[in-house]
Amino acid sequence: MPSPRREPVSRRERPSKSALSRRVIVDAALKLIRTPGDQGLTMRRLAAELDTGAASLYVYFKDTDELNAVVLDELLGALDFGRGRKPWRKRLVLLLSSYAELLTAHPTLAKTALFTRPSGANSVRLWEALLSLLGEGGIGGRDAAWAADLLLQRATATAAEQAVRLQDPNTAAADAVVAEVLAGLSPSEYPHLAGLYEEMLSGTPTSRLVWSVEVLIDGIAPKLQVAKRPQLSATPRAPGRTKAQGGHVRRRA
Amino acid sequence: MPSPRREPVSRRERPSKSALSRRVIVDAALKLIRTPGDQGLTMRRLAAELDTGAASLYVYFKDTDELNAVVLDELLGALDFGRGRKPWRKRLVLLLSSYAELLTAHPTLAKTALFTRPSGANSVRLWEALLSLLGEGGIGGRDAAWAADLLLQRATATAAEQAVRLQDPNTAAADAVVAEVLAGLSPSEYPHLAGLYEEMLSGTPTSRLVWSVEVLIDGIAPKLQVAKRPQLSATPRAPGRTKAQGGHVRRRA
Repeated sequence: MPSPRREPVSRRERPSKSALSRRVIVDAALKLIRTPGDQGLTMRRLAAELDTGAASLYVYFKDTDELNAVVLDELLGALDFGRGRKPWRKRLVLLLSSYAELLTAHPTLAKTALFTRPSGANSVRLWEALLSLLGEGGIGGRDAAWAADLLLQRATATAAEQAVRLQDPNTAAADAVVAEVLAGLSPSEYPHLAGLYEEMLSGTPTSRLVWSVEVLIDGIAPKLQVAKRPQLSATPRAPGRTKAQGGHVRRRA
Repeated sequence: MPSPRREPVSRRERPSKSALSRRVIVDAALKLIRTPGDQGLTMRRLAAELDTGAASLYVYFKDTDELNAVVLDELLGALDFGRGRKPWRKRLVLLLSSYAELLTAHPTLAKTALFTRPSGANSVRLWEALLSLLGEGGIGGRDAAWAADLLLQRATATAAEQAVRLQDPNTAAADAVVAEVLAGLSPSEYPHLAGLYEEMLSGTPTSRLVWSVEVLIDGIAPKLQVAKRPQLSATPRAPGRTKAQGGHVRRRA
């Protein structure tokens, strides 16, 4: 575990305000981002919440990135870290979905998670939980390490994109443009895309996330896929897949 | 194809400056972002390059996001769109790697690609190319549509993260903190992570991208994985996988 930063001593001793500390600042930040209509965490808004100046906060956090990283780590503490009695794949899907849901509610933190490599206590617990779940499925070594990274990136990117979309008042208009472009494609020029444009836009972020976790695990742990996939798949196979289902092709090499 | 926006008529008729148009502005933007040490595209910097005021540019592009989307689409025109005589998986890996390489060189555009749903001519060609390559591998329908989205998101997120890391002067220091935290974990408290911390940080963004494309395809097109995977895999199997290699497990259901 990282050793805790030494707390700078607050110089504010007037009894009408509570002394600043990293803990007090993080608690105020959590309160702020949980307020409906949250516009993201800024030092200025946080300072107003704490009835102080932004400069005082920089004594405790070197920049907004550091503050966001600490707040993100606090939020991750609410995850269940893959516990429970369900099969490991189910718990993996649930852990990643709940992680994505948490981030989707906080656009700024979703971006922080996407562009930084977190090392707070709960991020470390999340990594350990993912590796442990993959281990239950017989996935270890480099495959497990890289798979945990890939799964987490998938969930994070999905959440960040969705968070931005929910916040952006132009999302519906932009989606309409994309749908119009896709619907108007010439089937002779775009034989694949013209036929699949409805599927390009189908599904919810969550259903696509769940699908992707399942295919990733199928690809990494091929011995389990045929046996396990059907019980977890939330949606029916696409027609293109049907022929492949039963065939066990031998290695050609 | 989207019908081209009608060109506003430029009011600048002095012969010493060329008339503004979307084409002239996009060309100047491409020149700007290809300059070594590019700090990203802003209307202000672009206006200076064109010897005009930023307000004039807003006649042609409603905001920086729209400009970035058009510039990104222009850049995508440099891709080979999966052509060539190599096997489809190899061409898919090459297309996604070259796409990621292109984005990594342009942090702002990488973020644009991550948070918007592009519908320019070359984005549409890229979608068609991905679906066509997947089709060659027998992957169609919803699986193909969702897989193309997933693969593109993986490549885009990897590029965006790497672009931000390359630009950020604090990357090395932040990486050192993560490495120190991981290396200092107690094996009894974090049995998986403590043993795998070196693998957590191993590989280049490109090698991880290639690995992920392969496992994704393995998961989506299971009939092909045993036959095709070995010839593309750049690195040896992790020990955890060995036992699974030869087994063709029957569907239990």
